[in-house]
Amino acid sequence: MKKEKIDIVIREAIPDDAKEVLRFLEGVATETGFLSYGAEGLAISEEDEKYFIENILNSENNLLLVAILGEQIIGTASVKAEAKPKMKHIGEIGISISKDFWGFGLGTMLMEELIIWAEESEVIRRLELTVQDRNQRAIHLYEKMGFEQEGLLKRGVYDDGEYLDVQLMSKMIDA
Amino acid sequence: MKKEKIDIVIREAIPDDAKEVLRFLEGVATETGFLSYGAEGLAISEEDEKYFIENILNSENNLLLVAILGEQIIGTASVKAEAKPKMKHIGEIGISISKDFWGFGLGTMLMEELIIWAEESEVIRRLELTVQDRNQRAIHLYEKMGFEQEGLLKRGVYDDGEYLDVQLMSKMIDA
Repeated sequence: MKKEKIDIVIREAIPDDAKEVLRFLEGVATETGFLSYGAEGLAISEEDEKYFIENILNSENNLLLVAILGEQIIGTASVKAEAKPKMKHIGEIGISISKDFWGFGLGTMLMEELIIWAEESEVIRRLELTVQDRNQRAIHLYEKMGFEQEGLLKRGVYDDGEYLDVQLMSKMIDA
Repeated sequence: MKKEKIDIVIREAIPDDAKEVLRFLEGVATETGFLSYGAEGLAISEEDEKYFIENILNSENNLLLVAILGEQIIGTASVKAEAKPKMKHIGEIGISISKDFWGFGLGTMLMEELIIWAEESEVIRRLELTVQDRNQRAIHLYEKMGFEQEGLLKRGVYDDGEYLDVQLMSKMIDA
């Protein structure tokens, strides 16, 4: 038996990634019930997605990372923040990983990159995320990375005919 | 001494209200530090606002109410919800009242109308809102109307040089 390692690249998304990002996000939604959208997809055109990515690159408090194996996106991690002065310090995190690549520490790697970026941003002072209460794998990852539960949202998402509870978690960022 | 009553009309906003809605929202932001935007305003054109109001009128899970004295808007109440099937049952509430009209029960009237609308919507199953923890007047109103605290968001808003805690409150809707 011989052990090999494969190289995965994590970098900021560029406008040319638009088509592949959409393909990835629509694929991942059909694999898992843990996201806030389902098989209906995001209903976003490639042109719109290019424009979004361009805006994210030019923003001081928004980020989109892609994890790439060969030429294929296998994970994304995003920070979304508003432009309003009273709210621009709050970054909302979203992480999605292709099911084939669960369990290899990819979520941890993406989260570490997000946190480093947030600490260097000089704008973000609070990271927050919502996660289905049944998604214990993800909750453990977030706790390991320093996130704490702030609230439990009753009926925070609807899936497969039932209303599910959602945890709100946050981590303060102090540069 | 003689007591008089004045008539206030509460109704759904129509596209022709756009200009007055913007004027109201920008004015109210300079009166109070309790909103999520400040004197910078909303940076929305009258044309955009008309389009928003049109979309709200055509939506099954979005609502904008205006409270009118004579020809002047003195309060607004909104419910915002996403179109995504997994999230469309969640309505986020926003209520703003001109400072001159605080303390006359206008907030209660607007909230009662919102809740009746939500119960009749057959889509909304959860109403939620965020409120600054220091805004005890509003919190008492929301509790009186059946809202319960679900979480306390650290650094939920930035105002006057400091980060303030924000309460997340919700009320389940069962028709």
